[in-house]
Amino acid sequence: MPFNPVIAPSILSADFARLGEDVASVIDAGADWVHFDVMDNHYVPNLTIGPMVCDALRNYGISAPIDVHLMVKPVDRIIPDFAKAGASTITFHPEASEHVDRTLQLIRDQGCEAGLVFNPATPLHILDYVMDKVDMILLMSVNPGFGGQSFIPSTLAKLRQVRQKIDESGHAIRLEIDGGVKVDNIGEIYAAGADTFVAGSAIFNTANYQETIAKMRQEIAKQQ
Amino acid sequence: MPFNPVIAPSILSADFARLGEDVASVIDAGADWVHFDVMDNHYVPNLTIGPMVCDALRNYGISAPIDVHLMVKPVDRIIPDFAKAGASTITFHPEASEHVDRTLQLIRDQGCEAGLVFNPATPLHILDYVMDKVDMILLMSVNPGFGGQSFIPSTLAKLRQVRQKIDESGHAIRLEIDGGVKVDNIGEIYAAGADTFVAGSAIFNTANYQETIAKMRQEIAKQQ
Amino acid sequence: MPFNPVIAPSILSADFARLGEDVASVIDAGADWVHFDVMDNHYVPNLTIGPMVCDALRNYGISAPIDVHLMVKPVDRIIPDFAKAGASTITFHPEASEHVDRTLQLIRDQGCEAGLVFNPATPLHILDYVMDKVDMILLMSVNPGFGGQSFIPSTLAKLRQVRQKIDESGHAIRLEIDGGVKVDNIGEIYAAGADTFVAGSAIFNTANYQETIAKMRQEIAKQQ
Amino acid sequence: MPFNPVIAPSILSADFARLGEDVASVIDAGADWVHFDVMDNHYVPNLTIGPMVCDALRNYGISAPIDVHLMVKPVDRIIPDFAKAGASTITFHPEASEHVDRTLQLIRDQGCEAGLVFNPATPLHILDYVMDKVDMILLMSVNPGFGGQSFIPSTLAKLRQVRQKIDESGHAIRLEIDGGVKVDNIGEIYAAGADTFVAGSAIFNTANYQETIAKMRQEIAKQQ
Amino acid sequence: MPFNPVIAPSILSADFARLGEDVASVIDAGADWVHFDVMDNHYVPNLTIGPMVCDALRNYGISAPIDVHLMVKPVDRIIPDFAKAGASTITFHPEASEHVDRTLQLIRDQGCEAGLVFNPATPLHILDYVMDKVDMILLMSVNPGFGGQSFIPSTLAKLRQVRQKIDESGHAIRLEIDGGVKVDNIGEIYAAGADTFVAGSAIFNTANYQETIAKMRQEIAKQQ
Amino acid sequence: MPFNPVIAPSILSADFARLGEDVASVIDAGADWVHFDVMDNHYVPNLTIGPMVCDALRNYGISAPIDVHLMVKPVDRIIPDFAKAGASTITFHPEASEHVDRTLQLIRDQGCEAGLVFNPATPLHILDYVMDKVDMILLMSVNPGFGGQSFIPSTLAKLRQVRQKIDESGHAIRLEIDGGVKVDNIGEIYAAGADTFVAGSAIFNTANYQETIAKMRQEIAKQQ
Repeated sequence: MPFNPVIAPSILSADFARLGEDVASVIDAGADWVHFDVMDNHYVPNLTIGPMVCDALRNYGISAPIDVHLMVKPVDRIIPDFAKAGASTITFHPEASEHVDRTLQLIRDQGCEAGLVFNPATPLHILDYVMDKVDMILLMSVNPGFGGQSFIPSTLAKLRQVRQKIDESGHAIRLEIDGGVKVDNIGEIYAAGADTFVAGSAIFNTANYQETIAKMRQEIAKQQ
Repeated sequence: MPFNPVIAPSILSADFARLGEDVASVIDAGADWVHFDVMDNHYVPNLTIGPMVCDALRNYGISAPIDVHLMVKPVDRIIPDFAKAGASTITFHPEASEHVDRTLQLIRDQGCEAGLVFNPATPLHILDYVMDKVDMILLMSVNPGFGGQSFIPSTLAKLRQVRQKIDESGHAIRLEIDGGVKVDNIGEIYAAGADTFVAGSAIFNTANYQETIAKMRQEIAKQQ
Repeated sequence: MPFNPVIAPSILSADFARLGEDVASVIDAGADWVHFDVMDNHYVPNLTIGPMVCDALRNYGISAPIDVHLMVKPVDRIIPDFAKAGASTITFHPEASEHVDRTLQLIRDQGCEAGLVFNPATPLHILDYVMDKVDMILLMSVNPGFGGQSFIPSTLAKLRQVRQKIDESGHAIRLEIDGGVKVDNIGEIYAAGADTFVAGSAIFNTANYQETIAKMRQEIAKQQ
Repeated sequence: MPFNPVIAPSILSADFARLGEDVASVIDAGADWVHFDVMDNHYVPNLTIGPMVCDALRNYGISAPIDVHLMVKPVDRIIPDFAKAGASTITFHPEASEHVDRTLQLIRDQGCEAGLVFNPATPLHILDYVMDKVDMILLMSVNPGFGGQSFIPSTLAKLRQVRQKIDESGHAIRLEIDGGVKVDNIGEIYAAGADTFVAGSAIFNTANYQETIAKMRQEIAKQQ
Repeated sequence: MPFNPVIAPSILSADFARLGEDVASVIDAGADWVHFDVMDNHYVPNLTIGPMVCDALRNYGISAPIDVHLMVKPVDRIIPDFAKAGASTITFHPEASEHVDRTLQLIRDQGCEAGLVFNPATPLHILDYVMDKVDMILLMSVNPGFGGQSFIPSTLAKLRQVRQKIDESGHAIRLEIDGGVKVDNIGEIYAAGADTFVAGSAIFNTANYQETIAKMRQEIAKQQ
Repeated sequence: MPFNPVIAPSILSADFARLGEDVASVIDAGADWVHFDVMDNHYVPNLTIGPMVCDALRNYGISAPIDVHLMVKPVDRIIPDFAKAGASTITFHPEASEHVDRTLQLIRDQGCEAGLVFNPATPLHILDYVMDKVDMILLMSVNPGFGGQSFIPSTLAKLRQVRQKIDESGHAIRLEIDGGVKVDNIGEIYAAGADTFVAGSAIFNTANYQETIAKMRQEIAKQQ
C-alpha cells in the first residue's frame, strides 16, 4: 500500500458555532485531514454546509488537506466553487453526474485531487474505465445523509475487492472509508485495505481527541 | 405600523469559522435578530448552511430570534428540521411549493412564524388568499444567490404596495427587506414601509458593529 | 346561474373493494356525478387511482358523468387515457402544465369538458385569458392530497369573486367546490356562488346516502 | 430451492369495479398471493392504484399475502403508506432510489419483506452487495407499464443466472417472474429457476380461475 | 408608438438545408429581422436549432438583427452561448426562470436586448416589476412547439392591454406577436398595438417573398 | 468482422448555413453516412439540431444513411419524430431511458436500426441482456457535448472488449467510435475493433474532403 494511513475527522460532528477552533484542535490532536460533508437536500435528505464554510476554515488558518465529499446532484456547477474555497480533494457519487469522466477531469483541472464515492449497495463496475483518472475511492459503510447508523459489516469484503482493483491497476489511489469507523473496528478496516479513515462522533464526541486518534493509530499499527 | 423596527444581520457575511462568537457580537452590538440564509444549489446557484448550523447557534447560547430564509426547492421536507433546530421564523419563495397554503400551515404547526419571500420580479398576487396565514412578507431587493448586487431602486414602490396591502388586511404582518440595505438607504426603505431590515456586509464588514447598527437606527428614527 | 346544482360524491371515500356497487348506490341515492380524484405521488404526496379504474366503472354500468380531477404533474400524457376510459370532465391545476391553453384544447379535442383547479392559495389571474376555453372552474377549499382538513372559510370570498368573473364573462362555466363540504355548510357555499359540490366522507361515511344527499339539496333549496 | 411455488395473480387484470370479490375468487381458486402493480405516470407511462386500494382489500377480508410492485420513482415516501395499508412484500426498481441499501432497510423496518425488480435490459450487478438484504428478486419478462407484450425469451437465461446467484449466496431469497407467464410456458420458467409466478390475463381472462391455476401447478409439477 | 413596424420571418419555415441562402433572400426581399426559434424538447415537445446555427448565419454574412426566442427551460446557461453566436435580442418565457430579474440582466450584460414571452394563457402580472428591464414583450398567438394552429383571436385584446401598459410605463419597449400572422390579419394586429411581426409559413411558403412582405407593409400602412 | 468500414462525418463540423451543399460534398467525396448529433441542453450542455434539420437534408436529396446520435434525456418522445424525418439509425445513451429494452424496440418498430452509446466512463454491463436487440454500439472517445477534447487512449482497450462481446454474441452489430478520430489514429482504432468512424473537424476542417477520406481508408486498409 503506497500511502500512510490518514485520519480524517468528519466536520459534521464538530461544533459549527466554533468551527475554526474545533477543527484546529482536532488537527493539533493528530488528525491528518478534515473531511467536509456537503449535502444539498436533493441527493440526500439533509442540507449541511457549502463553499463559504470551507473558505472560512482556510481564512481561519487551517492548512491541513480538506477532503470535500459532495452528496449533491448534479455536481459540476459547484466544483469550481469548492476549488476556489480551498478544497484539496473532491469526491462525488457517480450517479450524480451523467459525464463521470468529464467531472473527474473538471476536478483535476481545478487543481484538486478527484475521487468517486460508492454507496453501500452501489456496485464497483463504474471503476472499469476510470482507474487512471481517480486519486481516491471512497466506500460508504453507512447510507449517507441518514442518521444513527452503524458500520455495515459487508463493507469489509467490498474494501478487499477495491484494494485488489487498485493494486492491479498500478495507480496510486487512496482507499477511504466513511461511516461508523471507531477505535474498535479501525484495525480490521485497515486490514481489509482502507488507508484513509473518516470518523465523526468517534472522535468529536470523545473528551480527548488526541487520545482517541492515538488509539486509532495503535489499532492500525497492530495490523501492519 | 404595529412593529418596532428590527435589524437582522445576515449570517452570510459573518465569519463561519467563529460563527457563535460573531453572531453573539452582533447581537450584543444591538442587532435584534439573526437572518439565516439557506441555499441548496438548486433553487439558487449556491449552497450555504442548513439545520445543523442553526442548532449549533442555539447550543452556543444565541437566544435572539433566528429568521430562516429558505432559498431551497422544494421546501416541505426541511421545515421540521429547522423548527427542531431552533428557527423562530421560516420564510420561503411561493414558487418553491405547489401547496403554499399547506406549507404556511406546516410552518405554524411546527411552532414557527411563517412568511413568503418575493424575488425582485415576482408579482404580489400570490398574497391574494393568504394574508391571514402569513406572519411576515420578505421582499428581495437583489436577486438571491448571486453576489455583488446593489439595492434595486424599484423595490421602494413595491414596498409601498405591500405596506398598503398589509394595512388594509388588518393583520399584524412584518414587512422585511433583504438586499443592499445600508446606513445610506435604510431611512428611505423604512419610509417606504419596511419594518425588518436584513443587512449583511453593511454590518459585518464594518469595524464597529455597534456604531453601524446605531447609525441605522438613527436613520430610521429620522423618518419616524 | 345557468346550471342546476350538482352533487358529486368523491370516490376517495367510497369502498375501493366494492367500487362499482358503492358508486351505483350513491348515484341511485340521488347523486348527480362521480368525482374521481387522481393523485400521482408527485404533484401531491399520495397515489390513488388511474384510467383503468375509471374504465372499470364504465364497464360496470355507471353512466353518470365522471368528473376527473387530475392532481398529477405533468398532465398532457394521461389526458387521452382518461378520455378513452370514459371521463366526462377533466380538470387540472394550471401550475401542472406549461401550456395551459393547449392542455384545455387537448381535453376538448378528446371530447371531454375542460376545467382548471385552484389550490387554496392560488390566485385567480390565470383565468384572465381562458374564460372562453373552460367549462368548469374548481376551487379547492382544502389542500389536495393531505388528509384531515376542514373547509377553509376564506374560500367563500374567493367563490364570490369567481362567480362574478363567470357572470361577467357571459360564458356557461360551472363553479365547483371541493373540500370539507357537508350538510352544515353547503347552503352558504351555494349562496357564495358554487353550483357543483364535491363531498366525500360527508356522504360515504353516513349510513343513508339518500338521506344525506336529500338534506344537502334542502340546504341548497333554502338559499334559492 | 427452499420455497414452494407461488402463483400471484396480477391485480391489473382483475375487475376494479368488483375488486374484493374478484380477488377473493382467485384466492379461493387456489392462488397464493395477490400481485399489486403500482404505477405513478412518471417511472412508467401509466397510473394505476395506490395504498388506499390495498387497504380496501384488507378491509374486505383478503388475508393472502399482498405483493406490492412499485413502478414509481422515487420510492421512499410511499413505502410506509403501503406498509400501513397491509402490504406483505414491497419490491422496487433499483434505479428508482439513490440509496438502495437504505430503501431495502426501510421496507424491512416497516415490517414487510423487501425485494428488487429488474427490467428486461437491466443488468444484475446491483445485486453484488445486497444479497443479505433482499427477500425476493423479481425479473420482468416484459417492459413494465407498456401493454400488449409477450414473454421475452432471453429472460430464461437471466433466471438461471439469478438462481445461481441466490443458491451461491446461501440466503433464502424468492425469485419472481412477471410478464407473459401462462400455462404454456410456466413449466420452462420454473425449470429456469423461478419460484414465484405473476400472471395477469392468463388467469383473470379465463372462464375458470381454478382450472387455470390447477393447470399451472401441473406444469410446474412436471418439472419437479 | 415609438418604433417602426418590423417584419421578422421565422426561421422555422425556412429551408434548413439552404439556411444562409434562404434567410438572405428573405432579408433581401424586405424583411427586417430573423426570428430564431429555439426548442429543447423539454419546455416544448420539439427540438429545433441552437447557437451553432445562429453562428453559422453570422458567418454566412447575415447582418440583420437575429431575434432569438428561447423555448427552453431553464434558460440561464444557454444565454451567453447565443450572445457569443451573434444574437441581437433574446426573449424567454418567465416560467422558465426562477430569477426573472436576474435573467433579464444577464441578457443585457451579454450585450443583447432582453424580452419576455407570454403563452396564450399566461397572464400579464409578471410585467408588474420589470417594465424598466425589458426591451421587448412577445405575445404568443398560438401555443409554441405544437404544429398546425391558427391565430387565437383573443390575443387582440391582450395586445391592447400590453400596448397600454407599455405606453403608461414611458419605456421604449417593442411589442412582438408570434403565431398565425399573415397578410389577412396583420392590419388588425398592428391596430391592436403590435409593432413587431413574426411570420413563418405566411412568408416562406409563398412563391415571392418580396410581394408578401410588401403586402404586409401595405396592410400595416392602411392602419397608420 | 462482418461489416465494411464506414466513414460517417459529423454534421456538427459542417457549415449550418449551407448544410445540404456541405453534406452532399462530403458524401460525394466518399463518405458513407452522415452522423447527426442531437443535443438538448439537458443531457449535455449544448443544444444543436433536431428532426426538422434531418428532414431538410432528405428533402435536399441526401440519400446516404443518416446516423442520429441522441444526446438527449429522456429519449422516447423524439424517436418517432426522427424516424419520420428520415433517420436510418438512432442511438441513445442507456442512462437516458428507464426502459432500455422498450426504447430499442421502439426504434426498430419505427423502421430504424437501433444502438446504444457509451460515455468514456460508462461500463459495458448494460449490454448483458440486449445483444439481440442492438444493431450498433457506439463508444464515445471524448465526453459528448463538451468542446476541445482529444481521443481518450483507454478507449482502445474498451473497443477490444466490445469487439469480443460482439463476436461472441454471434449477432451482426456495428461498432462505432466517436471523438477525436483522424487520419493519424484511425488505423489503430480500426485494429482495436471499430468498423464505423465518426469524424468531424478532421474531415470538414480540411481543404479537400476527398483526400482526407481517402487517407482514412488507406490507414484502415493497412490494418486489413
